[in-house]
Amino acid sequence: MSTSRYRAGADLGGTKIQTVVVDSNDHVLGQARVPTPKGDGPPGVMAAIIGAVRSAAEDASIEPAALSGIGLGSPGAVDDDNGTVSRAFNVVSDWTDDVPVAKQLGEALGAPVHLGNDVRVGTAAEMAFGAGQPYSSLIGVFWGTGVGGGVVLDKKIWTGRGAAGEIGHTVVRMGGARCTCGRKGCLEAYAGRMAMELEARRRVKDGQRTRLFDLMERQGRDRLTSGVWDRALEHHDRMAEELIDRALDALGAGIASVINLLDLEAVVIGGGLGTRLGQPYADRIAERMLPHLFVPERPPAVHVAMLGDLGGAIGAALLVKET
Amino acid sequence: MSTSRYRAGADLGGTKIQTVVVDSNDHVLGQARVPTPKGDGPPGVMAAIIGAVRSAAEDASIEPAALSGIGLGSPGAVDDDNGTVSRAFNVVSDWTDDVPVAKQLGEALGAPVHLGNDVRVGTAAEMAFGAGQPYSSLIGVFWGTGVGGGVVLDKKIWTGRGAAGEIGHTVVRMGGARCTCGRKGCLEAYAGRMAMELEARRRVKDGQRTRLFDLMERQGRDRLTSGVWDRALEHHDRMAEELIDRALDALGAGIASVINLLDLEAVVIGGGLGTRLGQPYADRIAERMLPHLFVPERPPAVHVAMLGDLGGAIGAALLVKET
Repeated sequence: MSTSRYRAGADLGGTKIQTVVVDSNDHVLGQARVPTPKGDGPPGVMAAIIGAVRSAAEDASIEPAALSGIGLGSPGAVDDDNGTVSRAFNVVSDWTDDVPVAKQLGEALGAPVHLGNDVRVGTAAEMAFGAGQPYSSLIGVFWGTGVGGGVVLDKKIWTGRGAAGEIGHTVVRMGGARCTCGRKGCLEAYAGRMAMELEARRRVKDGQRTRLFDLMERQGRDRLTSGVWDRALEHHDRMAEELIDRALDALGAGIASVINLLDLEAVVIGGGLGTRLGQPYADRIAERMLPHLFVPERPPAVHVAMLGDLGGAIGAALLVKET
Repeated sequence: MSTSRYRAGADLGGTKIQTVVVDSNDHVLGQARVPTPKGDGPPGVMAAIIGAVRSAAEDASIEPAALSGIGLGSPGAVDDDNGTVSRAFNVVSDWTDDVPVAKQLGEALGAPVHLGNDVRVGTAAEMAFGAGQPYSSLIGVFWGTGVGGGVVLDKKIWTGRGAAGEIGHTVVRMGGARCTCGRKGCLEAYAGRMAMELEARRRVKDGQRTRLFDLMERQGRDRLTSGVWDRALEHHDRMAEELIDRALDALGAGIASVINLLDLEAVVIGGGLGTRLGQPYADRIAERMLPHLFVPERPPAVHVAMLGDLGGAIGAALLVKET
């Protein structure tokens, strides 16, 4: 039972940690956002989450001790029963073993911690408060560092034997590009921001020109963030346009395959790149799906995620409510 | 309400029509099998179904009038409410418009007719009496003239907005081979028996050698049936081996993508080629899936369909029970 009206949600991503504090009506009272620290392994990440939850509480003008619970949406293998996260390689590359995340955060923040898969949590938020509200079946496609999926059937997240949703590892080209997961031809090998950056670096090494890395440095970044891609597209940088085009083709083919299989009502495009590029690019994905749809006269609705960068954290806060 | 213990089921395929008569325990009392007539359009097909149901009744030593109902599993767009089937191009190429199948069969056979999608009906039979019995989630993959899929989630067939299950039109190679559906790179463009035959004919035209068409003629066929492919493999015909190998690769990639998305417990391989080639080839599909599985240490079970050629007809008979 909640002893307070306030809950926190934290969305752990490969690039940033977003936190919110919400009230009993799920209204956001405060928020914070910090870069995901890369140098200090899981302990560094834990410290950053703790700091970001405290900052969101401060932004909401409440004490962290007043929180009835904290939800965390995380990539990797998330085990809420045991309170652990393992294999969160997108967060820090050496995050292999089980980290007792719930215990560490709970002790530091003085409230119970609930864990969920980042993509499912983001999809649940879009279903509850965002672009998914009108539909009973959809797929949330989180287009960011990787490409994650949250499948909703009859208004419920489908988890299968626990690992469902990996649309990023749909094979869109047998024998195709090497994915960051090590496999070949995955959707994520073409559309994941990490794979796109690796491809851009290869092309630069081959002597091709781009403003991508200049823009990156000018923004004080060491990676091609969604903002860098967006800015490069504004500048009509040819390599950026080509790589985004390639990503849109792969997203179109991969998502159309899901629709052919499940005949869902809608697609919600979220994630760093998805929300940054917005509805015009969601519309382009819808166009690229059309040639592959088995029933093209009745395509699913394709929306950009409505909750934007806050969706994951708001969904994480829902984990507290759900217990 | 049933007034009799006997029901008939008919499975309408691109190559043959299989019928059964079952009792109230779903035991098969009689069966018949006739080639699908190609020359006389939908009326010729209707006449053949009527004949095959009568033959199955005769085989069961009952009068057709003693049937409480007849179920028909059909490809194309099946509308049970209106009793019609349209766009069954795999059956006869000019089957475009709605054909009042339920009315025509019902009047000729004197019993109510229930319609279902062929692949879903076959999947339901495998769930009820076949290889799917131990599982609550699976995909039935019907590998024949085309490649169809029946998705089972929580023991129920998932239909989406009506058209779910089209695993054959999963994109396994963007910009790849032309599918018989007109699109590019579909699984069916590599693994559908019709597409495989077209590719074999192209290769022969290019001067490549094969025994496939000799074996076809020797078996008195004008198409490369599953039996012809099986025989050619026994003879180690190189083109047959190459095209089957290509099909297995595509099936492995396409089915693995489904497992990555839905994390299902099992895969049941049916259809003309699937049941003819049997468990050794189901095992090869399982092997080809492995490199693409996101959780390779816990692959789904992969079984060949247990009910073989009769599954579709037995499942069609279930349609009567379900009303």
